[in-house]
This record gives sequence, structure tokens and C-alpha cells, in this order.
Amino acid sequence: MMAAAAARADRPPASQASGPVAIVAGSGRLPLLIVEALERAGRPCRVLAIRGFADPATRRRADATVDLLDVRGALDTLCGWTPAGVTLAGAVARPSPAALLNTLAAYRNRETLRSLASGGDDHLLRGVLALLEEHGLQVLGVRDLAPGLMAPVGRFGALGPDEAADASVAAGRALLASLSPHDVGQAAVVASRRVLAVEGPEGTDRMLDRARTLARRPLGLGRAPAAMVLVKRAKDGQDLRVDLPAIGPRTVKRAAQTGCIGIAVGAGDTLVLDRAETVALADRLGLFLLGLPPDPEPAP
Amino acid sequence: MMAAAAARADRPPASQASGPVAIVAGSGRLPLLIVEALERAGRPCRVLAIRGFADPATRRRADATVDLLDVRGALDTLCGWTPAGVTLAGAVARPSPAALLNTLAAYRNRETLRSLASGGDDHLLRGVLALLEEHGLQVLGVRDLAPGLMAPVGRFGALGPDEAADASVAAGRALLASLSPHDVGQAAVVASRRVLAVEGPEGTDRMLDRARTLARRPLGLGRAPAAMVLVKRAKDGQDLRVDLPAIGPRTVKRAAQTGCIGIAVGAGDTLVLDRAETVALADRLGLFLLGLPPDPEPAP
Repeated sequence: MMAAAAARADRPPASQASGPVAIVAGSGRLPLLIVEALERAGRPCRVLAIRGFADPATRRRADATVDLLDVRGALDTLCGWTPAGVTLAGAVARPSPAALLNTLAAYRNRETLRSLASGGDDHLLRGVLALLEEHGLQVLGVRDLAPGLMAPVGRFGALGPDEAADASVAAGRALLASLSPHDVGQAAVVASRRVLAVEGPEGTDRMLDRARTLARRPLGLGRAPAAMVLVKRAKDGQDLRVDLPAIGPRTVKRAAQTGCIGIAVGAGDTLVLDRAETVALADRLGLFLLGLPPDPEPAP
Repeated sequence: MMAAAAARADRPPASQASGPVAIVAGSGRLPLLIVEALERAGRPCRVLAIRGFADPATRRRADATVDLLDVRGALDTLCGWTPAGVTLAGAVARPSPAALLNTLAAYRNRETLRSLASGGDDHLLRGVLALLEEHGLQVLGVRDLAPGLMAPVGRFGALGPDEAADASVAAGRALLASLSPHDVGQAAVVASRRVLAVEGPEGTDRMLDRARTLARRPLGLGRAPAAMVLVKRAKDGQDLRVDLPAIGPRTVKRAAQTGCIGIAVGAGDTLVLDRAETVALADRLGLFLLGLPPDPEPAP
């Protein structure tokens, strides 16, 4: 450990302000959306595709490709680019625990790893971040690089919430604020005053499925619970550079199937993937899209 | 409404301190457990069985039987007993919304009903309580009538939590305290610092199923998340006279299947059904059972 720490201290920072932005690209369209945003802004960038995860279009644009668990190779490539910063974009499956241990054991204390792997997602991602930073790489978030991809404040589709939906949104928002310190609850489904589901590690899609099942029970007055909304936002203290709440066309479709009449997300901290398509679909399915401004200071 | 209010005001309280305890009996063993506890204490009691829900053994002991939605019949019978108090015990299915409306419309304002039916379970139960009280009946809880059926403070099986389990219990407890004002989250599953599931209207059993699925993912280090516990307690402000958290042998079995190493419940506010069997099963399956004292005053 001492030797490794000394080696890190000797190494100059790998990030250079004049360098390109390095995008470590997992699956989905986000990596290329960032590339396009950077290119429009005239900023150079390099793409490091993760083999088996990056989409074909991303791979065609990639400057290099690595295996997910080839940590040494990824760090060497990234440092070689002396990038202005590194951003992690797109999904990867959580690697198998054994693979994690084998490949990262050389870099970090085994007990730390064990602790990381048994904590929340936030915890694991903070570990990856720390690893990059230990190697002198500055990690940037999508928010910094392409703020136009984030949800704006206020409605961003054709529809807006009515009074009942506003009340559901407020209830969901207060609920998520309460959950935030517990590293759980990036999203919830609320209908009138009734919380139908709180998102755990299963993710938004499965939580919506659960809410749909509950909404079909004869709960209220023989119809779907009224004013059902999906509320989604970052947890307090969530590192938005590596873990960003996101919605997209699929979210809109599933929320509509669940019986939601709208989606409210944290403005500035939630990515709207394929925004034009997301908005068009929400308009067509009759869902409002709402960006929530940051919480006011909590009451004492 | 005015006429009804006047009629109620004219009517003397139906409860008489010298009267028997009336037990409105749904399914499960709880109604008879209360009868046994009252008989041991030398208190007279009468059982009003709900047709289609009360167990055969309960029906054999019943003094009268009503249909779930025969509200008039139930009130007439109960008032006729001039009971010291009424307790609602055992499960009934939430009646269909149309049936609710038709049968209760005569008693309560339709808008109030609609509001009750669209709120949380607490809300609906408070409505039933209010209806009984409007008719002069005092509603008593199991806690008052048979405190020996509730979880005690401290461990009540052979096993106790180790340090890691204590930390999981503390995390779950803090989580549920945060959720409580939102009328959701009577239970949660926590492993190490990771919240695996928060109970919504789906109930504890389904939440445990969800946690089991998550626990089988390669989340941590290729084994079940460590120190997984089920934490269950009443929400603040939950009316324990009509809505009591409960555990029993089935809870222990499902918690064990989920991978839990113990169950922590609110002492004094959680019913332990079939206690001897519950404890024996927990001992056999290696789960601790722990009664949590009430929360300390929240920090300012």
C-alpha cells in the first residue's frame, strides 16, 4: 500500500486543461449524445469504448476499445490522452464480484473493496471515481459537459400537471427528500396521497411494473388511483459525475402503461435521453413532463 | 347530514364500562388469541364473526355473524351488546370499491368516502374507526386488551444480532423513521449499508420476495449480501387499534428464504402471532428476533 501511494504521489496529474475530453463509453446513446454536444461546442474528444457494452455506432466512433475489467489498459489509454477530463457514459452491467476482486485487487485495499461491493451503488461508483482520481484523471459529469441534455426547470412537454397531479408530485418529492440520506429511493410512484412504490436497487422499470400491479387492484373507487405520477431525482450527495438519474422514451412508455399521468424529475440533475423523442411520446400518450427546481432549504 | 348528526347526538354512548369486550373477527388466529387472553384475565367477551373471513374455530365461538358490508347489521349487533369496547381483529380483504360506496353511502358523506378510499390504508381504517365512534362505540386495540401478544423489548428468541446485524437494524430503523410521515414503509429489508427493499402497499411478503430476487444478483462478493435483516414497525401516527404490524411463523419462514439472519420489530407495537411457534421456528432456522424500544426523541 505504501509503495502504491508513493507511486501515485510521484506521478504528475494526467489531466491537462488543453487536452481532449475522454468519454468512457458503455451502452446506449448517451456517449454519442455527449460527443455531438462537445463537437457542437468545438471541444475535442476521444472515445474509449467498453467492449461488449458500447453500441455499434459508438464503436465506429471510438478511438480505442477496452474490456470492462481491463482496468490497467483503460487507465493507460486514458492517461496517454492527457485529457482535460474523463466522463463515464452509458450503462455497463455490474461486473461479477469475483471478477471485480481479481482485477481491482492490485489497485485497492481488499477490505476497502469488500466494503465498496457490499454498500449501495453510490458507494461502488465513488470507488471507481476515487480510482480514476488517484491516477490524476479529473472526472467530469454530463452536467458539466453537455448541460443541454439535462431536464430544464418547469414543464418541457406540451402538457402540465393539474392541481391533483401537483399534489402527487409534491408528496413524491417530499418522500424522496426523506429517503435520500439512506442511499435509496431515486424514484417513487405516488397516486393522490398514496405512495404506491419506492424504488430500491431493482431500478425504475421494475418499480413501475410493481406500481402497475398495485394500481390494478381494487384499491380506491374501481378505477386506477387518481393523479398517479412518477417522481425521480438524484439523492442528496449522489455523485452526478458518475450516476445520473435518467429518463427517456422507454421511461415514458412504461410510466404510461403503469397509469401515470406525468413524470416529474429533478431539473439539472436528471438526464433526458433522446429529448425530442421523449417529449413527442409524452405528448402523444398524454403525460406531462416537469422539471423540479432544487428543494428549498429544509425547515428547521 | 344535519339530521344524522342530530340523531347521533341524541343517542347515548353504546359502550358501557361494565359490558363485554366485543371482538369483530376476520380471518386468522388472532380473534381467538384475544378471546383466550381476555378469558384468562376474567373479562367477558362477545365475538362478531365476519362471514366468509372468520376461521371455522372462530365461527364456532362466535355470538353472532355478519356480512362484511352489512354495516347496519354490525352496528346494531355491537350496540345491542353495550360493550365496554370493540376491537377489530383478523384480516379481511379490502371490499370492492363499488360495494364500499353502496353500503357506506348511507352513513357518510360521499366525498369523504371518496377521499378515504383514495388515501392510504391508514386513511381508510381511520374512517372505519370514526364510523364506530360516531355510533358511541369505544374502539380498543389488541395492545390494550392482550399486551402479552405484542413483541417485548430485546431479543425474544434464542439468538441475538451480532455487530453487523445491529448496524443493519439501525439503518433500517432510521429509514423507517424517515418514511413514516409519508404513510408508507412499515417494513424494509437492509443488508449492510444497502437498503434492498422498502415495503409499499404490496405488503411484507411481496417485499421479501423482491429482496430475495435482488439478493441473488451478483451484487456484492458472490454471496448473499451480509447481515440482511427484516425491520418492521408501526408508522408514527398509525392507529394501532385497527392496524397493527404483525409477524408470525410465515414471516420467519419467508425472511429465512430471503436470506435474512434476523427480524427486528417495534416492541409493544408489533403483534407476534403464535409466539411459541414463531420463536421455535426462528431458533431452528437461525434467525434472531429482536424487539426495538421506541425511538429516542429525534435530534433537532
